[in-house]
Amino acid sequence: MSEQEEWHNSPVGVFDSGVGGLTVAREIMRQLPNERIVYFGDTARVPYGSKSRETVTKFSRQIVHFLETQKVKAIVVACNTASAYALEDLEKEVEVPIIGVVQPGAIAALAATRNKKIGVIATEATINSGIYNRYIEKSDSGVKIIGKACPLFVPLVEEGLWEDPVTDEIAGRYLTELVDSGIDTLILGCTHYPMLRSTVAKIMGNGVTLVNPAYETARELKTLLLEKGLESEHRPGLGTELYRFFVSDAADKFQRFANSILTYGILSAKVINIDEF
Amino acid sequence: MSEQEEWHNSPVGVFDSGVGGLTVAREIMRQLPNERIVYFGDTARVPYGSKSRETVTKFSRQIVHFLETQKVKAIVVACNTASAYALEDLEKEVEVPIIGVVQPGAIAALAATRNKKIGVIATEATINSGIYNRYIEKSDSGVKIIGKACPLFVPLVEEGLWEDPVTDEIAGRYLTELVDSGIDTLILGCTHYPMLRSTVAKIMGNGVTLVNPAYETARELKTLLLEKGLESEHRPGLGTELYRFFVSDAADKFQRFANSILTYGILSAKVINIDEF
Repeated sequence: MSEQEEWHNSPVGVFDSGVGGLTVAREIMRQLPNERIVYFGDTARVPYGSKSRETVTKFSRQIVHFLETQKVKAIVVACNTASAYALEDLEKEVEVPIIGVVQPGAIAALAATRNKKIGVIATEATINSGIYNRYIEKSDSGVKIIGKACPLFVPLVEEGLWEDPVTDEIAGRYLTELVDSGIDTLILGCTHYPMLRSTVAKIMGNGVTLVNPAYETARELKTLLLEKGLESEHRPGLGTELYRFFVSDAADKFQRFANSILTYGILSAKVINIDEF
Repeated sequence: MSEQEEWHNSPVGVFDSGVGGLTVAREIMRQLPNERIVYFGDTARVPYGSKSRETVTKFSRQIVHFLETQKVKAIVVACNTASAYALEDLEKEVEVPIIGVVQPGAIAALAATRNKKIGVIATEATINSGIYNRYIEKSDSGVKIIGKACPLFVPLVEEGLWEDPVTDEIAGRYLTELVDSGIDTLILGCTHYPMLRSTVAKIMGNGVTLVNPAYETARELKTLLLEKGLESEHRPGLGTELYRFFVSDAADKFQRFANSILTYGILSAKVINIDEF
């Protein structure tokens, strides 16, 4: 087998601070069914959204080093906070193509908006980084962007309160100013948030398009693999592990959560010591 | 100055996964005003309460190694999860006296209960460890203990929703079974929870004594220092740094939070790389 063929069959690396990135992995599974995936969730150090640029970059760099040992052909940073804080540095350091979730989300929002008013909901870190503003304004400086940090959304999702009066109440508080601002497009700027889609949709109303960067990221990955000639042309045969999952802690809890999100059943997630990478 | 005198003047090390342990530090400041404190909050890896025994023990061990470099004369594990998972191992490894928050809380609850029904609210990790049951049953096997994990309390406190209808609603759900169980004593088994004391008190009613292990832990520390002849007899002079604060991430946010809890104003918190210890 030639080296090129080996790369074809190599997996795509996908990582997140925890389980949120599974919404991106799910989209990749749907749109690129031939691709193998190595997923890493940093469950020992989750969440990232309240932490600093230095810390998030250090953690992300260790994960990328781990994924390199798994011989991935491309890396998807399936975490908005890591995309916001670490992607620019990682792009310079990594040999394989690496993409984040922010740019695809920004592009999709630009395509969707008619009144040029776009909202972004995300973690404190992502909002403070101003990354969505930078990507959107680079393409169209006439767009008004309203960002809102929603720090309780991640713990609410992790507790399984996807549809709950408490989540409705908290979402109502976070989203009021976005409703009042007259945006017509809202980016779900954290990979946990698609699980609150129906709650957010109810509050924002029919006039607002919700953009889930997971969908757009999987599309961008597809384009990238085609461009670079890296796409897997056939679904891996029986006996090949299509999807592998690694975490830095608490594999059981991760598995339960993953099995509630993915239609594909996760057989097992393996714990690794991420500090060593 | 003799070696013994140097130890007298050494600080006490206090650590937690983040800001919760400040409720314990505050009690030490009140009850032992002559003691210097070195506080460490693991803000890069907070929270601990949803993580595994192995991970919490590894993180706690690194922190103890850091505190040893600060020449502390005693260590207070001001985190229930770390006390539950790591204290037993650490006791064997550390030369200076080390105490946790669980045993003092258990003793206080045993002293308070009349009907021998004690409730414990804590993180998932602390509840799953069964540590309060072990400590309480060791002293009195006739006590009935009802434990309840309250995983959203930490994020709600960290968001500042100390008195809020959402916190009332969540607390109501968590505490209903404890109210129905007829307990007369409830241990606030997570160092964040004293900040929700009034919410919890309102739901539990006047008949239930709330035990805050922070108070009892400071008392136990006082007894321990006296027994070992390690107490500082005089308040350190001007120019001595009475309290020093270290964190693994986001010092600014920690300072703001600390200044809202402590009457003593924190001048600065220093970020250190805790992985290196």
